[in-house]
Amino acid sequence: MAENQANSVGIVETRTVKVVDSDSPLQLVSGKRLWPVEAAYETYGQPNSAGDNAVLICHALSGSAHAAGINSAGDKKPGWWDMMIGPGKAIDTNKYFVICSNFLGGCSGTTGPSSINPATGKPYNLDFPMITIADMVKVQKLLLDKLEIKQLLGVIGGSMGGMQVLQWAIEYPDFVKSAIVIASTPRLGAQAIAFDAVGRNAILADTEAGGKSTKGLATARMIGHITYLSEESMRKKFGRELRDAEKYSYDFGSEFSVETYLDYQGQSFIDRFDANSYLYITKAMDYFDLERDYGSIEKAFAQTKSRFLIVSFTSDWLFTPGQSEEMVNALVAQRKPVSYCNILSPYGHDAFLLEPEALGGLISGFLSTTLEKPKAGKPSAVSSPKGADRIKRLRVDYELIESLITPDSRVLDVGCGDGQLLINLQYDKNIEAEGIEVDQQLVGTCISKGLNIIHRDIERKLSYYPDGSFDYAILSQTLQTLKNPHQVFAELLRVAEKVIVSFPNFAHWRCRIGLLTGRAPRTKQLPFKWYDTPNIHFLSLKDFEAFCEEIGAKIETKIPLIGNSKSPVKFAPNIFAEQAIYLTSKR
Amino acid sequence: MAENQANSVGIVETRTVKVVDSDSPLQLVSGKRLWPVEAAYETYGQPNSAGDNAVLICHALSGSAHAAGINSAGDKKPGWWDMMIGPGKAIDTNKYFVICSNFLGGCSGTTGPSSINPATGKPYNLDFPMITIADMVKVQKLLLDKLEIKQLLGVIGGSMGGMQVLQWAIEYPDFVKSAIVIASTPRLGAQAIAFDAVGRNAILADTEAGGKSTKGLATARMIGHITYLSEESMRKKFGRELRDAEKYSYDFGSEFSVETYLDYQGQSFIDRFDANSYLYITKAMDYFDLERDYGSIEKAFAQTKSRFLIVSFTSDWLFTPGQSEEMVNALVAQRKPVSYCNILSPYGHDAFLLEPEALGGLISGFLSTTLEKPKAGKPSAVSSPKGADRIKRLRVDYELIESLITPDSRVLDVGCGDGQLLINLQYDKNIEAEGIEVDQQLVGTCISKGLNIIHRDIERKLSYYPDGSFDYAILSQTLQTLKNPHQVFAELLRVAEKVIVSFPNFAHWRCRIGLLTGRAPRTKQLPFKWYDTPNIHFLSLKDFEAFCEEIGAKIETKIPLIGNSKSPVKFAPNIFAEQAIYLTSKR
Repeated sequence: MAENQANSVGIVETRTVKVVDSDSPLQLVSGKRLWPVEAAYETYGQPNSAGDNAVLICHALSGSAHAAGINSAGDKKPGWWDMMIGPGKAIDTNKYFVICSNFLGGCSGTTGPSSINPATGKPYNLDFPMITIADMVKVQKLLLDKLEIKQLLGVIGGSMGGMQVLQWAIEYPDFVKSAIVIASTPRLGAQAIAFDAVGRNAILADTEAGGKSTKGLATARMIGHITYLSEESMRKKFGRELRDAEKYSYDFGSEFSVETYLDYQGQSFIDRFDANSYLYITKAMDYFDLERDYGSIEKAFAQTKSRFLIVSFTSDWLFTPGQSEEMVNALVAQRKPVSYCNILSPYGHDAFLLEPEALGGLISGFLSTTLEKPKAGKPSAVSSPKGADRIKRLRVDYELIESLITPDSRVLDVGCGDGQLLINLQYDKNIEAEGIEVDQQLVGTCISKGLNIIHRDIERKLSYYPDGSFDYAILSQTLQTLKNPHQVFAELLRVAEKVIVSFPNFAHWRCRIGLLTGRAPRTKQLPFKWYDTPNIHFLSLKDFEAFCEEIGAKIETKIPLIGNSKSPVKFAPNIFAEQAIYLTSKR
Repeated sequence: MAENQANSVGIVETRTVKVVDSDSPLQLVSGKRLWPVEAAYETYGQPNSAGDNAVLICHALSGSAHAAGINSAGDKKPGWWDMMIGPGKAIDTNKYFVICSNFLGGCSGTTGPSSINPATGKPYNLDFPMITIADMVKVQKLLLDKLEIKQLLGVIGGSMGGMQVLQWAIEYPDFVKSAIVIASTPRLGAQAIAFDAVGRNAILADTEAGGKSTKGLATARMIGHITYLSEESMRKKFGRELRDAEKYSYDFGSEFSVETYLDYQGQSFIDRFDANSYLYITKAMDYFDLERDYGSIEKAFAQTKSRFLIVSFTSDWLFTPGQSEEMVNALVAQRKPVSYCNILSPYGHDAFLLEPEALGGLISGFLSTTLEKPKAGKPSAVSSPKGADRIKRLRVDYELIESLITPDSRVLDVGCGDGQLLINLQYDKNIEAEGIEVDQQLVGTCISKGLNIIHRDIERKLSYYPDGSFDYAILSQTLQTLKNPHQVFAELLRVAEKVIVSFPNFAHWRCRIGLLTGRAPRTKQLPFKWYDTPNIHFLSLKDFEAFCEEIGAKIETKIPLIGNSKSPVKFAPNIFAEQAIYLTSKR
């Protein structure tokens, strides 16, 4: 990514400050104590007068405090997240005061295994005490205290950085206003531990042979790199290409391009990283386990007060979308404010460094609506309308649905689109809003509006929502498009006291006449051809009422409608209504 | 798996025979020559008098000639595929004469890097010439010549064994009657090459340090083991369990169960395997590439004369189902007889050693119908009927569809179920049959009937079939259940000269009256509730005819039907027909 001066933070200095001295040694989770501890950090942008614009960046395994800008005039290589941090960028240094520090156990300025052990005057190496993510976060807090930062607007981190973000939100609930957890996990699974273990094995085998591991560290880094990429991205990037030959060499040199790439990654890592740091850091990752530390993932989140944004990437097989969803589900179960987006990306785990646009949009929208709650104000119109008539129709729908909802209630909009109905309800009825939406773009729109939104197929079970989590659930013009309308509706009746449903009436007289002519009916409400329609289940008002009877739902209000009129159809609604809105509840 | 005497081949001896001597050295693909070459092998069962019951088993990376039975009276550990090979087992030694040999470059009896180099009197080690899968197969052919085997009923192999099977079918088309390729690939992708390369790197780093690699081999084996399992199976088997403690040890010992498991796998491999063999064998795998060797995968299969059975496992991420499908597609494109099944399994790549029931069923059905073509004979009834009426109805359908098909034609049945219609057509009309079916169980049924059947969702494109591959494609009672009926039908019109379609008539008078009562209609042909129906598109005879007009299909024959009568409805079919069968073609 080419950097131009205009949107770079420019030349920055990595500073170091002593955060622990012999007077009050650092108490580690392992039981050991450590002193002194120095922390390396960089800052970008300026604190504002209110002191509410500080954002902490937590880096991943091989990162450092140098997240943005360049370290000297001739420096060609900007910081590791320069694409995200800078004036006008997603983490906008014109608005935010950004801090990034090298973590405890690292090898880029903060105390770690390569630091001098004051007891011996030599580097600690394997005498360094075992550290955990919690220890790292404790050191970060000590650093922020030194910098006199009283609160964080946001803590942001990807991969192992995300673990630190989780730890921050859990351990310092009053300090953290929002937490952005990217491509991370509440704990590694067996496969990820296995990869780490093999890497450490290679390093330790080498270390035992005497001296500092180099070949072992290279092997570990190679394994790591395979897990950071996706099969798809490796196939596209390297395929079976040979480095510089047409024919096989029939020897054990590196001849496939992917081998050369790994060799390079391994070799260049040796030059810049400490093998012992690698051992300690991967072990800290393996040890990280919200379930073990707090009893369950849900309990871990019980005391948090932050807004959460959880982001995963579809092709990430190291820290999987499923692991992000576990956290989302636990937060939802605890009724904590959370948004989730699973970004479509071919880049695997590395996507958190390679999807600046999609990821940046989410971070920017989430951070800015945390700093400043979106102003109330009657929204002008539904965005991206497909014709004036549709806008009118939707406005009537929205107004009628609004009329069914009592103020100050908790509302879940299932398939909430751009979130306009929820925004209206927040403005008019002061509701507590949550949305579920399957479209990634629309999820981003909702986040930039400050809504809590979960990126998810609404046909998937809502089992993580406790019974009666909401006063209302809304299912607008969606029932007839579902594969399992029965299951979805029953789930909504469980999680909400009342469910508002709207759908087109398939027994409208135009449909009946349509079928009498011997063709699958097409009307204004049902304009599609039989083979090309999103509507895959057809029901009439009567069908829906019989269905409610069957599954034990009570119909509290029924609003059959024609055209853009707000007045309910009074006469023979099953014949004359083009669509209907129902308010239902459990019997 | 507990072995009892009853279904074991009992005590077997691994024999060794010299297949290459200095008179005619083995010409290797690399250009080098090798002599002498000995081959280690075992046999189970007896050759029959016709000499047409020989089955060759090709083993994978760490396997050996010892595939079944035990090597001595006290031997506790049976051969590596004992669950598959034995009297009454899938590869039934009462019927077949089974041979398995250690491949060239191995370390279990056949000449390899640990063999004595006659030029030096010492083991070859890294002086062994580079070998390929083609070289291995060449040696196997020399062995079979020595054993005076004139033809193979089948060649069977999983993983790298599957590569050898492919090579056999391609290089010796007249020698191989059937080829069973399990969890294999036409060539490794970048990710798999990368894992191999890292493993070799670890071994070579160790070897350079002097002496035989042990730690490096262990590291390589550990990496291998992670790739043989699935994330799911590792999670279920190990999770985050600690080996023998409640609390973390805060040191670098192996404390997670998965670490202990990998340590054990690494250590035990050192005891039984040669590190140099590992280097040569993985390189042979990396080099294997049907595309590079033959111009394209399709061209590789152009000269084959075998029946193919390709099997993959859903959770195999090393040799993926997609790679198996590439081979299936190439075979289909070449109009070669092929069956494919993607077995649902959580066990990853290792599933080829862990799914004896599902895999055994396929192998057994495929082998036995290769040995003996299923006898012609009027089938008695449709299997697993859901009521006598349904049988009658289906029989009428089948008879009418049969009446539309001319003898000796090529027929594709899309969604062929248990294959009964195709079997009937084979018997009555001597057709060349192919089926596509999404249900794994039914795929197995079709294979045991000797049909060529592809396991596949019929909504996926058929792009690999050349235009006009078939005289007829049949889509029976399926159109209305498809997500994209338009696309599927258009594809069928492309790959077949004529398409036979049957579907229920949604404009039948009972439906019309049903809708007039204001409810989604339910009839004998459409008995489902609106929210719980497989039918997600509704069409009438008129709709279908308009649709044909629109997409440029010509209706050649139209058979509107009522009840179980074979006579077409003459009067107002769009009102009175409950269903219809159409014969259509491109205009």
